[in-house]
Amino acid sequence: MSDRSDSTPGNIDRRGMLKRTGAVLGGLVALGVSNGPLQFALAQGEQQNAASPAATMGATVSRVVADPTRLPGPIGRRDPLTHDITLDIVEKVAEIEPGVTFNYMTFGGQVPSPLIRVRQGDTINFTLNNRGVMPHNIDFHAVYGPGGGAEATFVAGGQSNGMTFKAMYPGAFIYHCAIPVVLDQHISAGMFGLIVVEPPEGLPPVDREFYFGQHEVYTNRATGEKGHHDFDFPSMWDERPKYVLFNGGKYAITADHYGSVKARVGETVRIFFANGGPNLTSNFHPIGNVWSKVWREGAIASNPERYVQTVAVPPGSSGIFEMELLVPGDIVLVDHALSRATRKGAMAVIDVEGDARPDIFDPEGSATA
Amino acid sequence: MSDRSDSTPGNIDRRGMLKRTGAVLGGLVALGVSNGPLQFALAQGEQQNAASPAATMGATVSRVVADPTRLPGPIGRRDPLTHDITLDIVEKVAEIEPGVTFNYMTFGGQVPSPLIRVRQGDTINFTLNNRGVMPHNIDFHAVYGPGGGAEATFVAGGQSNGMTFKAMYPGAFIYHCAIPVVLDQHISAGMFGLIVVEPPEGLPPVDREFYFGQHEVYTNRATGEKGHHDFDFPSMWDERPKYVLFNGGKYAITADHYGSVKARVGETVRIFFANGGPNLTSNFHPIGNVWSKVWREGAIASNPERYVQTVAVPPGSSGIFEMELLVPGDIVLVDHALSRATRKGAMAVIDVEGDARPDIFDPEGSATA
Amino acid sequence: MSDRSDSTPGNIDRRGMLKRTGAVLGGLVALGVSNGPLQFALAQGEQQNAASPAATMGATVSRVVADPTRLPGPIGRRDPLTHDITLDIVEKVAEIEPGVTFNYMTFGGQVPSPLIRVRQGDTINFTLNNRGVMPHNIDFHAVYGPGGGAEATFVAGGQSNGMTFKAMYPGAFIYHCAIPVVLDQHISAGMFGLIVVEPPEGLPPVDREFYFGQHEVYTNRATGEKGHHDFDFPSMWDERPKYVLFNGGKYAITADHYGSVKARVGETVRIFFANGGPNLTSNFHPIGNVWSKVWREGAIASNPERYVQTVAVPPGSSGIFEMELLVPGDIVLVDHALSRATRKGAMAVIDVEGDARPDIFDPEGSATA
Repeated sequence: MSDRSDSTPGNIDRRGMLKRTGAVLGGLVALGVSNGPLQFALAQGEQQNAASPAATMGATVSRVVADPTRLPGPIGRRDPLTHDITLDIVEKVAEIEPGVTFNYMTFGGQVPSPLIRVRQGDTINFTLNNRGVMPHNIDFHAVYGPGGGAEATFVAGGQSNGMTFKAMYPGAFIYHCAIPVVLDQHISAGMFGLIVVEPPEGLPPVDREFYFGQHEVYTNRATGEKGHHDFDFPSMWDERPKYVLFNGGKYAITADHYGSVKARVGETVRIFFANGGPNLTSNFHPIGNVWSKVWREGAIASNPERYVQTVAVPPGSSGIFEMELLVPGDIVLVDHALSRATRKGAMAVIDVEGDARPDIFDPEGSATA
Repeated sequence: MSDRSDSTPGNIDRRGMLKRTGAVLGGLVALGVSNGPLQFALAQGEQQNAASPAATMGATVSRVVADPTRLPGPIGRRDPLTHDITLDIVEKVAEIEPGVTFNYMTFGGQVPSPLIRVRQGDTINFTLNNRGVMPHNIDFHAVYGPGGGAEATFVAGGQSNGMTFKAMYPGAFIYHCAIPVVLDQHISAGMFGLIVVEPPEGLPPVDREFYFGQHEVYTNRATGEKGHHDFDFPSMWDERPKYVLFNGGKYAITADHYGSVKARVGETVRIFFANGGPNLTSNFHPIGNVWSKVWREGAIASNPERYVQTVAVPPGSSGIFEMELLVPGDIVLVDHALSRATRKGAMAVIDVEGDARPDIFDPEGSATA
Repeated sequence: MSDRSDSTPGNIDRRGMLKRTGAVLGGLVALGVSNGPLQFALAQGEQQNAASPAATMGATVSRVVADPTRLPGPIGRRDPLTHDITLDIVEKVAEIEPGVTFNYMTFGGQVPSPLIRVRQGDTINFTLNNRGVMPHNIDFHAVYGPGGGAEATFVAGGQSNGMTFKAMYPGAFIYHCAIPVVLDQHISAGMFGLIVVEPPEGLPPVDREFYFGQHEVYTNRATGEKGHHDFDFPSMWDERPKYVLFNGGKYAITADHYGSVKARVGETVRIFFANGGPNLTSNFHPIGNVWSKVWREGAIASNPERYVQTVAVPPGSSGIFEMELLVPGDIVLVDHALSRATRKGAMAVIDVEGDARPDIFDPEGSATA
C-alpha cells in the first residue's frame, strides 16, 4: 500500500507538488552548452511554494535551493509498510549566487534532493520520472542491489523507470545519480539527497529538524564572476571547485539571500546533513555551538558521539547532528575548511531567538585591559 | 621457531614463491630515468602463479597487481610463537593501465605488498632482501621502535638487513618504505602493505576475505596518455595525482583487466584495506552494499561500527570492512571522491553469484510513470 | 575570583610573561606588505624564556614556535570557579625556517596560541588585548554564544575587549581568530590554540603532557626560497599551501632547530593536538609508536579509542592522543600525508631515553639473507 503522507515531502510526489506549489513546468527550452555533449532543460515560470517561509524572498526567479525546514516528520509507526515513492528529474538553469547562473540537474527541482524518510523493514516501490533530456539513474546507499539501484533505474530523457527494494538497515544514506562515466559531474550539478531509514524504535525526539546538503561545483569561470558558468571537467578531476555550497546556493540560507532558518532558546535541533561531494570532505561545524550528539556518517546503529566540535563528512556520506540551544543569537554552519566558507559559499545561518542567559554567555563581561 | 605456513602468503618467502610460482627474477636491466637521480630494475620474464585465478589473464607481461584473494587465513592458534618472515624488494616496470608503463618499487613484487598475519604477542624475525638498486627500508605501524623499524632495516641495493620485534597490540597496520626524504615517492611507486595483528581471541569468522590497497601515483604525463610515465615530484608536493589505484592498476580488478573477484549470496565477506597514500584520504564505499561492520583505521581493540556507508581512511592507515551479501550482482568498490573512480582508476568489482531475492531487491518493480 | 596559577601558562598573562621571560616588546616597527591592505608589527629584540629547554637554541631571533612542554598541568580541583584570563594579540615577523621570514599574527606571541585549561562548569572572565594594528577577535569552540564569542570580542588595534562565559561541556577545543571575510588568512598567519575543558573527574593521570599545533601557510614564493614570504590568497583559496607546520615552524621541534622534546621509557605521554587549518585535514601519526588512546576531535565525553595508527584531525578541530613508551629512541610525529612531512615541515621529534628492551624491539635481530 501507499503511504506518501508520512514518508515524503510534497515535492517528491509530483502531483502533490503541483497541487501545493502551483509550479508550472511547461515551456521547456533546450539549451546547447559549450562544454561537452550535454543538453539541459530550462523550467520557465517555475514558482516556489508561497507557504514556505524561505520562499518569500525567492520571487519568481528559478530556484534550486532547498528549504531546510521542508522535510517529513519522524516515523511514528511500529509496523513496516509499503510505500510508492516517485522522484522527478528536472534539469534547469538557476543561480549559484546573484548574477551567476549554472545548468543544474536535480531530483525534485531542488538541492539537496528531497529527503525521503522510511522505517527499517519498509518496502519502497520507487519510480524515477526523467523530465529532462539527459539519461540518469539513482544509487541509494540504503539499497542492497547492483549499483544501489542504478542499473535498474536507468532512464532516458522523457521516460520513467523504477524498482522495488526493502530498507534492510538503519541510517541516513545518500542517494545520487550514478550515470556511468560522468556521475561525478551529475552530482556536482546537484543530483544528491538523503534517504533516512529509521530503526524500529525511531530516533530520540527533538524540537526541530533541519535538512542541509553540501556539494561542490566546478565551473569554467572565476568564483563570483558574473554571467553563465559552464561545467568544467579538468577542475573536477583536479578536485579544485569554484564553489562549495550549502543547499545548492552561495550563502543561500542567510539573511542576505533566501533567509536564515529560525529556532528558539531551550530547543534541541537535529540536522540531517548530506555531503554529495563529488570529491571534497566536509568539516561540518556549528559556529557558536557544539554537536551535542553526532551519528557519524549517518550510522544510526551505533551510539552517537557527544560534544564534538567539527566532524569530517566524506563525499558520498552524511551525518546526523544535534545541538542544544542554550543562548540566543546566530549559529553559523560552515565547512571548517574555512576558505570554502569565506570564499566559496559553504555557510548557512540558524537564527536562535529567546532570552539571554548571561550566566552562560555575557558579551558585556570582562574587557579590563 | 619458524611458522611460515599460517602467517605468510607464498610470495613473502622468496624461496617458497619461486617454488610455487616459477618466477624467474633474472636479467635485471638498469634503467635511467629522467626525473631525479633514481634508477630502477626491470624484472624480465617474470610470470604469475598459474594456480591464482586472477593470474590467468596476466599472461607473461610484468604485473604488480596483487590478487585480492591471496592472503593468509585466520590465526587459529591460542599461543604466541616466533616467525621468520622475509620480504623481497623488487623494482620493476609494469603497466598502470594497458599501454601506460611506470617504474614500480615493491615489496614482494606486488601492490599492495603481501599481507602478513600474526597474533598479538608473536615475535617476528624479519629479513628485508633488497633485490633492487635503490636503498630502501621498512616502517611497520605495528612496531614499537625507532621509525617502526626503518632505521634497523635500512638496506642498500643487493644487500639484506633485518630486525626482531614483538607484535604488542592488535590491529591491521600499514607497513611501507620510509627511506628518508623520498619515502612519499617510494610509497607512490608501490611500497606499502598490511600486517594484521590478531588479538588472542582472533577476529569473528567470516566466509571469505579479500585484500585491497589504494594509493596514488604522480606522473609527468596526462592520465591515460600512452607510453612510459616518469615520476613527477611537483605534482606529488601539490597532492594532485594522475592516478588513484586499487591494487596498483587502473580498474585492475574488474572484468576488463585481471578479472573481478567472486563471492556468493549468503556469505559474509571481510576486506582488509590499506591506504598507502602517500597523501590522499580514501573514502571507501561498496556500491550496492554497506559496511555492516567497520573497524575504523584497523583498530581491532575497539568495537566495530555498524552499517556505515562510506568511511574515510587516512593515508598511512587502514580499515577492516565487512559486508553481508544478500542479493546477487556486482558490488563496486570505490573511493567515493568520485572523480578518482571515474577518471583515475579507483574502482574494483566483487561479483556476487546466487539466487535473486526479489523481496529485498526487485529491479523489475515499480516504474509506473 | 582569579585563578591564573592552575589554568594558564605564563605567557597568557602578559605581565606574568614579561616578568618570567624578560621579553622586551619595544621598538615596534610598522611594515608595509605588498599583498593586500595589511600592516604588521615587528617585535624587535624579543627573547625567549631561558628556563625553557627548547629555548636554549633560539638565541635572540624572534620566535613564534611554542615550546611543546609549556602548558598548564591537570586541574586538581573538585569545584568550579571563576578565572580571569587574558590573551595578548601580537603581530610579528618571524622565521618559518632559517632564512625565510613571514608576517605572523598570534595570540600570546606563539604558535599554537597558549593552551588554556579549565574545568567544566568554570566561568571565564576573558580579556583580549590587541597589541597589533589589525582588527581581530576570538572564537572559542568551547563557548555557547554568537561566533563562539567572536562578536563580543571584536577589537581594533591597540584596544581591549572581552566577554564572560561558562565552560558547559568537556573537551579539547580550538580557539581562533574569526575576523569576518579573512579569518582563514588570520589562522594561516598563526592565530589558533586550544582550550581544554576537563570533566569534573579530570583526565586519567599520565607522566607527561605535550602541546602541538598544526597549520598551513600560504605564501607567494616557493617552499624553502630564502627571503621574506608574503601571504598569498589565491593559493589559500586553492588549498595548496607552501608550508604545513607543527608549532609554527618547519621542523621546529627537532634537533636541527629548537630541539626535540624529551621523555623516558616506561612513561605514558599525552599530546594535546590542535589543527588550526585553515583548510587541510591532518593525519596525525607517531612514527615508531601507536596512539594507545585517542579522544577523536578532542571529544572527552566519549570513550577513547584504543591502538589507532593514524587519526584524521579536521581543520578547526583537535585530538587528545596518548602513547606508551616501551622502548628508547626517537618518535617522529607527522602528518601522514607524507609530502607535508618530507617537504613542507610537518614533523616533530620526541626523544625517548631509557634502557633498551630487545624482547620488544631488537634492531640487531634477524637479517639472514
